[in-house]
Amino acid sequence: MALLGPSLMCADMGNLKEEVIRLDKAGVDYYHFDVMDGRFVPNFTMGPDLIRKLREFSEKPFDVHLMIEKPEDHLDLFIDAGADMISIHAEATQHLQRTLQSLRDKGIKAGVALNPSTSLTEIEYVLDVIDYVTVMTVNPGFAGQKFVPLMNKKIENLKRLIEESGYKIDIQVDGNIGYRTIPEVIENGAEMLVLGTSCLFGQESTFQESIANLREFIKNQQVKVDAK
Amino acid sequence: MALLGPSLMCADMGNLKEEVIRLDKAGVDYYHFDVMDGRFVPNFTMGPDLIRKLREFSEKPFDVHLMIEKPEDHLDLFIDAGADMISIHAEATQHLQRTLQSLRDKGIKAGVALNPSTSLTEIEYVLDVIDYVTVMTVNPGFAGQKFVPLMNKKIENLKRLIEESGYKIDIQVDGNIGYRTIPEVIENGAEMLVLGTSCLFGQESTFQESIANLREFIKNQQVKVDAK
Amino acid sequence: MALLGPSLMCADMGNLKEEVIRLDKAGVDYYHFDVMDGRFVPNFTMGPDLIRKLREFSEKPFDVHLMIEKPEDHLDLFIDAGADMISIHAEATQHLQRTLQSLRDKGIKAGVALNPSTSLTEIEYVLDVIDYVTVMTVNPGFAGQKFVPLMNKKIENLKRLIEESGYKIDIQVDGNIGYRTIPEVIENGAEMLVLGTSCLFGQESTFQESIANLREFIKNQQVKVDAK
Amino acid sequence: MALLGPSLMCADMGNLKEEVIRLDKAGVDYYHFDVMDGRFVPNFTMGPDLIRKLREFSEKPFDVHLMIEKPEDHLDLFIDAGADMISIHAEATQHLQRTLQSLRDKGIKAGVALNPSTSLTEIEYVLDVIDYVTVMTVNPGFAGQKFVPLMNKKIENLKRLIEESGYKIDIQVDGNIGYRTIPEVIENGAEMLVLGTSCLFGQESTFQESIANLREFIKNQQVKVDAK
Amino acid sequence: MALLGPSLMCADMGNLKEEVIRLDKAGVDYYHFDVMDGRFVPNFTMGPDLIRKLREFSEKPFDVHLMIEKPEDHLDLFIDAGADMISIHAEATQHLQRTLQSLRDKGIKAGVALNPSTSLTEIEYVLDVIDYVTVMTVNPGFAGQKFVPLMNKKIENLKRLIEESGYKIDIQVDGNIGYRTIPEVIENGAEMLVLGTSCLFGQESTFQESIANLREFIKNQQVKVDAK
Amino acid sequence: MALLGPSLMCADMGNLKEEVIRLDKAGVDYYHFDVMDGRFVPNFTMGPDLIRKLREFSEKPFDVHLMIEKPEDHLDLFIDAGADMISIHAEATQHLQRTLQSLRDKGIKAGVALNPSTSLTEIEYVLDVIDYVTVMTVNPGFAGQKFVPLMNKKIENLKRLIEESGYKIDIQVDGNIGYRTIPEVIENGAEMLVLGTSCLFGQESTFQESIANLREFIKNQQVKVDAK
Repeated sequence: MALLGPSLMCADMGNLKEEVIRLDKAGVDYYHFDVMDGRFVPNFTMGPDLIRKLREFSEKPFDVHLMIEKPEDHLDLFIDAGADMISIHAEATQHLQRTLQSLRDKGIKAGVALNPSTSLTEIEYVLDVIDYVTVMTVNPGFAGQKFVPLMNKKIENLKRLIEESGYKIDIQVDGNIGYRTIPEVIENGAEMLVLGTSCLFGQESTFQESIANLREFIKNQQVKVDAK
Repeated sequence: MALLGPSLMCADMGNLKEEVIRLDKAGVDYYHFDVMDGRFVPNFTMGPDLIRKLREFSEKPFDVHLMIEKPEDHLDLFIDAGADMISIHAEATQHLQRTLQSLRDKGIKAGVALNPSTSLTEIEYVLDVIDYVTVMTVNPGFAGQKFVPLMNKKIENLKRLIEESGYKIDIQVDGNIGYRTIPEVIENGAEMLVLGTSCLFGQESTFQESIANLREFIKNQQVKVDAK
Repeated sequence: MALLGPSLMCADMGNLKEEVIRLDKAGVDYYHFDVMDGRFVPNFTMGPDLIRKLREFSEKPFDVHLMIEKPEDHLDLFIDAGADMISIHAEATQHLQRTLQSLRDKGIKAGVALNPSTSLTEIEYVLDVIDYVTVMTVNPGFAGQKFVPLMNKKIENLKRLIEESGYKIDIQVDGNIGYRTIPEVIENGAEMLVLGTSCLFGQESTFQESIANLREFIKNQQVKVDAK
Repeated sequence: MALLGPSLMCADMGNLKEEVIRLDKAGVDYYHFDVMDGRFVPNFTMGPDLIRKLREFSEKPFDVHLMIEKPEDHLDLFIDAGADMISIHAEATQHLQRTLQSLRDKGIKAGVALNPSTSLTEIEYVLDVIDYVTVMTVNPGFAGQKFVPLMNKKIENLKRLIEESGYKIDIQVDGNIGYRTIPEVIENGAEMLVLGTSCLFGQESTFQESIANLREFIKNQQVKVDAK
Repeated sequence: MALLGPSLMCADMGNLKEEVIRLDKAGVDYYHFDVMDGRFVPNFTMGPDLIRKLREFSEKPFDVHLMIEKPEDHLDLFIDAGADMISIHAEATQHLQRTLQSLRDKGIKAGVALNPSTSLTEIEYVLDVIDYVTVMTVNPGFAGQKFVPLMNKKIENLKRLIEESGYKIDIQVDGNIGYRTIPEVIENGAEMLVLGTSCLFGQESTFQESIANLREFIKNQQVKVDAK
Repeated sequence: MALLGPSLMCADMGNLKEEVIRLDKAGVDYYHFDVMDGRFVPNFTMGPDLIRKLREFSEKPFDVHLMIEKPEDHLDLFIDAGADMISIHAEATQHLQRTLQSLRDKGIKAGVALNPSTSLTEIEYVLDVIDYVTVMTVNPGFAGQKFVPLMNKKIENLKRLIEESGYKIDIQVDGNIGYRTIPEVIENGAEMLVLGTSCLFGQESTFQESIANLREFIKNQQVKVDAK
């Protein structure tokens, strides 16, 4: 069953403590934090102090998505603040293996995030040190971007690559994940969903209802996929 | 009388809406937002979405301190989000005059921030397009840094430079501003104080009490200075 | 039939208006502008003002080849100046999909240029937003470079990749395209030729004769290829 | 008497050979070439091939203004193309003395260009290896910018600095130099004028008339200055 | 038979002349110099002056491994100092073909080094200008790193790629090459070994004994491989 | 009496242990290590492993001159290796105060090095955290450069600045320091000399003689200066 992780960048930024408490009650599986540096992506969002603060209010995994250049220089900031999982962009470092290995060595789940155009050849030789791959299904940097259609093919290819490798690696999808895009990403192999404005925030329903509806919807999709 | 502006980076990051509402009631004069890019300073904090969100809860001036490289590439993000004043670092751009002029042209108060080691020669030829100068009295990037003693001399020199130029420019001080450092910075000419953990946040008193006490303290200092 | 586009960097730089008028009469299919930044390639050539000026003298497509870092930051300069087609280097940006998509959204034909060593895996997930691929058949930066032999294999592989994908994408070849290299690039699938000193400029014949001769030569090559 | 140098970036880019021939006849003193890299300034203009081409049509000094990062890496391109004078930006290199010295060693007149905000302290220890200082009287990068008023004070300060040093250094002014700005820059000490759209190009008079009128105007100014 | 090249970065840095004389007598096949720039890797080691000095004491090939950004800007420093072979990192340049070609043109053997995560797709179109490929079997930058297990698979894939291409290219392995790792790298196709602390320096035996033992060990491995 | 520190970059790089032992016996006062990154200066020399190795053979102060970008990211490498004093370039960091302060906090003597063109305004607000200033009397990067004449004026100005400030700061001079340049640098206030090929290495005399002669020469100069 797919894991649901709200992207806090889409939540009420003035009231994140309450948002987290409500989301915890609604039964989300983890939290997704988007960190930006104005250079890898042209925006700025949040940093370690916010993560440290929210850490007090949830015991669920904190998944920190570093949309920053040279992430290897900044890992400790986020580990010290309470990250459980950290994904770094393959495009942002020349030392992917070393950076992933160092996350693992520190007890952090290591993820690789891939921009829409990035090839899967980038991760062929690090499959043994990856816990999850974040397929960017929109271009990173801002909320409300368009889903990139070819990403379904990438998820499918990635699923096959992982299965052939024999490693246990989760596929996370990030960007415009909602009722219209979930069926296909689930069918292709996505196991972790990042939830933003498309299906969780800015909706009329409560978090409780939204999460329950999503789980029901996904379960049905899963049944269909398994039936094939 | 010196203007008091809380640094929201030192506030309760999980509950900023309430913090702003309480600070507004306590009578602060403006809000100070620290934006970092992980490169100009080795930390990350907040971005335009937070500023936009808090904009709904206060009509006081929002002062955005860009501790980022090439600030000229990012001004619109913060102006659109609701900034009234923006300070950029002299060390972070090769085009200080153009960037300050473009802030002015867009109706934003233009500030120049100076790292502790930076000389006042950097601003000699932009005095006509500056509304305020932010003297960093600690090294930028993190809360809780040590006040740099020579900064009192810099404030004094800056005050004289401004007076000789005939322009109306405010001096803002940022970093470890509290009861021990205020007397001297006020005496040397500081007119805008950035308030952090040293005298406002993490104190036992309420914001209301803290601000009232500070105003009283500053008034007394001012009297002494004027008496000289 | 292959499209012929003179590289204006090889034309008489002191008299480009006349060059364009003559080339238009000679029946070229488009114009190729090489823009360099001294960093992506160690040279400088031309900019938007020249493109805007020449725009008055031709209605043929203007194809702007950006040999510059972070092309995403400079697109509007060239679109405003009159570009119809813009190619960016896969090696010069971390956000290839977003940049190509934004060109398309603005009504510009979007191209990806590839340095000789660059793998076709770079474009696998952007085939749906590309109008043409520029295979650099020399190393970019200067006129008069040596044709890189393995590029014939790359053109062939690219042709197959495009055909398998089902998308309509043209293959452009740029660098030392002349009578000795045309047969093989045509055979492998090139459809747009960038013409420089090897077959158009610095020749004894007029533009009219040169273009006519080239068309005849290419037609014969095409017949041979089709006959296989 | 001030030297007059047209900025070819403001000339008819499609017909520069004719422009240079006409300007030569009109009696200009030198030619000013603006080279940009899209990074030091956000624009692109021209490169060495154009300079080499125009070199055939004039024997007057070619003054190349490098608005580029790390100019030390690109000097030979422009020297080989025919530059007689090269100015580099103090803001663009960490090795100003070495770069200026190396220009001198190659027989090129060495200039330092200063952005509007840049302090004269930047050149204090290179006065012995400078032939001219280019005071940017607008922000560099585009034609048609506004004259920065404080630059008159900078020219005045620079004149004094040079006189006190005892070195023979010319002051060049670049940006919006026309009938409204010339009197004051001449009075303050400018000796080389870069002529653009404000008084030469895009005017109704011929180059011959424009240059003659300017010379007459400047002579009268000079008389007034000398009379003081 | 595999070629043995000691990494001088692991030798006695205070006495390299003696080290080289002893290693020459012990019969090593070449010398490996690791040059670092603090940016491509976070360390610094040695430069051209050391290479020039040691050049006097050995006629064996000097293999310079440039762990530096933009190696194309620094080749002549090392060629002039006496390098016979230079390997550059595929991750460190956007102009791999041009840089390799320029090494070849200057009579230097051209190598490409690949960080552990780097895909073999990076070298597909430069196989005709490569003399050797350096597979980093540890993350570069420091001595004493852990062997990355997936590198055996990369060596195997590389061997197949080379054989299919028909070019004569040697495979060099660099990082934690010792008795535990040699059997598998030899079996997979490695032909040049970089020797460091794992089997040569910091051992109790003399260089003479170490090299002799290694040769014997490798010969036996080779026999086993050939027997398969 | 001026302190004498040999620059090991000018010593016999193949035999540094012996060089240090001999120099120690000759009575030098400290050792000067030049570290380069190929970017701040276009050369490479040595790193922490060499410093650590030589540390075993001398108890004199090790003075490490970091000619590298962003020295703040690399301090620990050199402190761990045994540096007693570290000088960083004012041009290479935006955080001069923080970097110097952090050196002091770790028990290292903190120096600022200044390229020939760099103004003394750069150090005005860090005089309280500096132990020594290195005036580059040649352009950094290579041995055998020409002494820059205006540096005598800079040393003189620096001496006055230090005396007026009341802080205890030594003036070090680095570059072409020999019998022809010593009298004037001593007269102007230099107290630490970096010795290279001009008076120590590559001479016919022994280290013992060279140092003794230098001391005698300097003593006589000092007498003359004191006599004025």
